[in-house]
Formats: sequence, structure tokens, C-alpha cells
Amino acid sequence: MGPNPVRRFSIQRLDSASLERFVDEVAVEEPLEIRVAYRFKEATRAESFAVTMRTPGHDRELAAGLLFSEGVIQGLEDIVDLRMLGSSTGSSANEILAELTPAVDFDVPALARRGYVNSSCGVCGKRTREAISQNLPQLVESGFNLDWASIAELPMRLRERQRDFARTGGLHAAALADRNGNIEAVFEDIGRHNALDKLIGHCLLKRRLPLSDRLIFMSSRSSFELVQKSLMAGCAVLATVGGPSSLAIEMARERSMTLLGFFRDGHCNVYSGEWRLHSKIYEVAPSRE
Amino acid sequence: MGPNPVRRFSIQRLDSASLERFVDEVAVEEPLEIRVAYRFKEATRAESFAVTMRTPGHDRELAAGLLFSEGVIQGLEDIVDLRMLGSSTGSSANEILAELTPAVDFDVPALARRGYVNSSCGVCGKRTREAISQNLPQLVESGFNLDWASIAELPMRLRERQRDFARTGGLHAAALADRNGNIEAVFEDIGRHNALDKLIGHCLLKRRLPLSDRLIFMSSRSSFELVQKSLMAGCAVLATVGGPSSLAIEMARERSMTLLGFFRDGHCNVYSGEWRLHSKIYEVAPSRE
Repeated sequence: MGPNPVRRFSIQRLDSASLERFVDEVAVEEPLEIRVAYRFKEATRAESFAVTMRTPGHDRELAAGLLFSEGVIQGLEDIVDLRMLGSSTGSSANEILAELTPAVDFDVPALARRGYVNSSCGVCGKRTREAISQNLPQLVESGFNLDWASIAELPMRLRERQRDFARTGGLHAAALADRNGNIEAVFEDIGRHNALDKLIGHCLLKRRLPLSDRLIFMSSRSSFELVQKSLMAGCAVLATVGGPSSLAIEMARERSMTLLGFFRDGHCNVYSGEWRLHSKIYEVAPSRE
Repeated sequence: MGPNPVRRFSIQRLDSASLERFVDEVAVEEPLEIRVAYRFKEATRAESFAVTMRTPGHDRELAAGLLFSEGVIQGLEDIVDLRMLGSSTGSSANEILAELTPAVDFDVPALARRGYVNSSCGVCGKRTREAISQNLPQLVESGFNLDWASIAELPMRLRERQRDFARTGGLHAAALADRNGNIEAVFEDIGRHNALDKLIGHCLLKRRLPLSDRLIFMSSRSSFELVQKSLMAGCAVLATVGGPSSLAIEMARERSMTLLGFFRDGHCNVYSGEWRLHSKIYEVAPSRE
């Protein structure tokens, strides 16, 4: 059991005919500072790597996932230790320290100089589309494919697992599923990027990367950054309940990733990589067009 | 007329019984690099301040709003010039330069060292809740208040104005409204924080800050960062279609801001600052509890 991702507030509900005081359940948002200890000229130094607003819980997964999906570490072997630091304010611990091996070429000032970054970004300092795509790994073609009939129930299955979202309307979920649509892990967070980093960090810590025979299913829209993180995890299929951005589609097509959107109520839009989907429909499709 | 916020893609729509090829309209996501020219030891230097993923259009407003809402500039008088730079790739311009007066104490390395920031953050380098709240301005109590009956139609009015959201499902909107619920300006973006920065930047460029007699209405959830940006703009009322985070409520209560959520279908939740709302309901409320 981790910390409660939901906090209760006494509030008022107002409409044209009534005023009601009640207790509302709200998704928790708290800052997490991720500090990194690294070797610098024979000495060990710790520096702040990121402060992210997140829903407490699975902070180790979040830190490991962020370090991996942003390319700072290449694998679990780069992490010597990962531990929560006590909070000086007496509230829940909002600081985590990742100690990395000397092999990691971690230049905090250079990383920080990538720039002060507004929310929903994640492409810190990568100044052009070209620079952005340069650092993305190529997918290894594993022959992974899916039968549409087997995964069409994913939205329903995720809702069953995602109790907190149902309660607050404020948490996103990232789920790992196999080719039969079985959900193996779900992580929730107020931020969709954090939810995916928790999932990727979980797989990293369990030595389950790359995700070459799995799909990632998310309750949110998809963005460039979610495509990027999925590619970093070696996952060839990203499906979301909401729609994609233009750059999510463009990057998925460039990298031959399968990108599905508006995946709900028994249908989905196929934005890229349709060759990984089987269905009776597809087999007769050429004659239908 | 700005650039088109929507791009068309040929995709496939799949359900259990059919496969259909059609053209989908998708919200555009492109990086914008915001560069700042500033004085350093008698010389003028330009450095990268931020790279944000945004929907092109109103980039001057976005840059001005971000610089203001993050506290880099105190007002329009701090901006000497604000101009788009040509794109080296031949595509749309994705770089903007803000030239600031020498009065601005703009230390890029120090700002950058606040940390590499994951998406949905915006509290770069402010390491604790206490540090976060320190830098927030106090609202000036202007006596601004609202009649619930006059603003209850805001969600419908916003939907009428927000054509692109309706088309793509992928754009957030930030609207400025007066106490009678009249919408005076709407800005859309794939990121909710960008949409609000565009709105604040618009008001800054039109010399309409602080927003002490206006409310901000948004199509999204509310976060700590949206509360923070609204406070920076001197706005006492933030209302959103979605729900707030715990930290949004806590900060709104600390700063005596009015925070409304789940504002739709003729009702809303009042999370903070109910004294700014009049309604017949409220007048009889004490005897009903």
C-alpha cells in the first residue's frame, strides 16, 4: 500500500436550485524533487535533476522511469541505489535520490541548460524537429502483432482497474497489456507523462525492458512525448482513449510505431502501423476500398 | 488569421464490423523555442529560455505570457521587442526572441539550473511547498464578485467559441469573461498551460493586467500551475470544466482565490472563495444547513 492518491475536501456544490455541502475526493498533486548522485572528478556530488508535480506513490518507479525515458540511464545496471529522502517539513517525503554508476556520463549543468521548460513539454533544449527525432531509438522489429478482437475490450478492462480515476476524474492511467488484451500493470498519476514514467520505471526495475511484445494503453490523449517515452521503452504499440497530436502521429509514422487513438466503445482510429493489427476486417479490406 | 491549429491526416477507423479510411483533423503540436536577449556585463546576449510544445498561433502572446506568469518580467515595460525568428528548416517559424530591458535581472544559467523539468510541472526548482508559495503574489481585494445565475452559461458560450476543440477533441481553451459571463477573449492550445499563457500574454500586450474584475474559465482540469498563473495575472476567480488537484485547492484557499470546478451542465463545485459568489441560494443557505 502506497500513500493515498486521493485527498478529501469539504466543499460546496451549487446549481440553480440548491446548495449542498459535501466531501469531495480529489487527486493529490505534490512536488517530487529527483536528485541524482554522480561522480565528478573523483568526488561524488548530488544535484537536483528535476522537480515534477506528481501524485505520490510509486516514486521509485517514477524516478527510474524518468531517468530512463529521458535517456540519462541506459538500464537498471546504471542505478546503484534509489531511495526516498526524509521530508524536512514533516509531511510526506517529496525527495528521492538516485545514485548512478560512474559509467553514467551525467552532466547536470549541461542537462539543466537545455532550458527552463514549460509544462507539457519534455523536449527540453531539443531545438528543432530534426534534433528531437535524432535521439529516438529505432524499434527492433520483433514480429509483434495483435488481433483487434482480442484487445477491443481494453478500455473496459482499464476502467475496472482504475478505481481512483472513477472517483476523482483527475487521474490518468498507463497500462501494460499483452497481445490478448490482458492488463498486467496499471499506474495512475495526475500527469499522463508521470503515469507512463511510473509504468516504464516499474518494467525497468523488474528487468522487463524492452517491451517488444507488449502494448501500452493510456486513458489520456497522446503527445509527442508519450510516443517518445514508449519508443525509449522499446514498445511498438501505443493506444490511447483520447486523440493524438499531429507530432505524435508524425513521429509514430517516422519510427514505424503503431499508434491507436479514440480507442473506446469498441472502435479505434489507426494513425500509424496498421500492419501490426490483424482482423477479419483487414483481410477483406483491400476489396472494400 | 494565424496558422491553422488543425492538421489533416488520412487514417483508418476500425470497429468489429468495418474498416473505413477517412481524413481526420488533429490538433497541431510543434516545439517553440523562446529565446531571450538580455544585457550581461555591457554586452547583449541571447540565450534559450524555454522550449515548449505548443499549437502554433499567438506565439507572441504565449512568450509574453510565459515570461510574465513565471515572474521573469514584471510588466509590458520590461519588453523592448518580441519577434518571430525565421525557421532554418523552411517550415513554420518555431523560434521567438524576446528582447528585455536592462532593468530585468535575467540570469539564464540560474533559471536553467532550477532543473530539468518533466511535463505538467512548472515549479522548477521550487523545492518545497513552502518555497512554491513564497513567490506567489497576494491578491489585491477589489470587491469583485459574481452572480451565479449570470455565469452559469459559460460552458455553453465557450463551446460556441471553441470550434477547433469540437473538431479535434485535442485542444484546450482559456477564456476571459466579465462578471456577467460575457466571453471577451479565447485562446486555444494543445497544452492547457499554454492556453492560459496565451490569454495572459494577450492581456499583458493589451495593457489589461491585472485582471482584478475578470474571471478565467478553462476547458481543462485545474492544477497548481494554473492557479499560480491566474494569481500572477491578478485574477481572483478561476473556473474549470474539469476537476482541480489537491494542490490547486490548497493554494487557492491559502491565497483567498475563488476556485470553481466541474463547471458544466448548470452546476459547479465551489472549492474556495465562495464569498465572491452571490446567488439566491447562498442567501438562504445558512438556514438550510
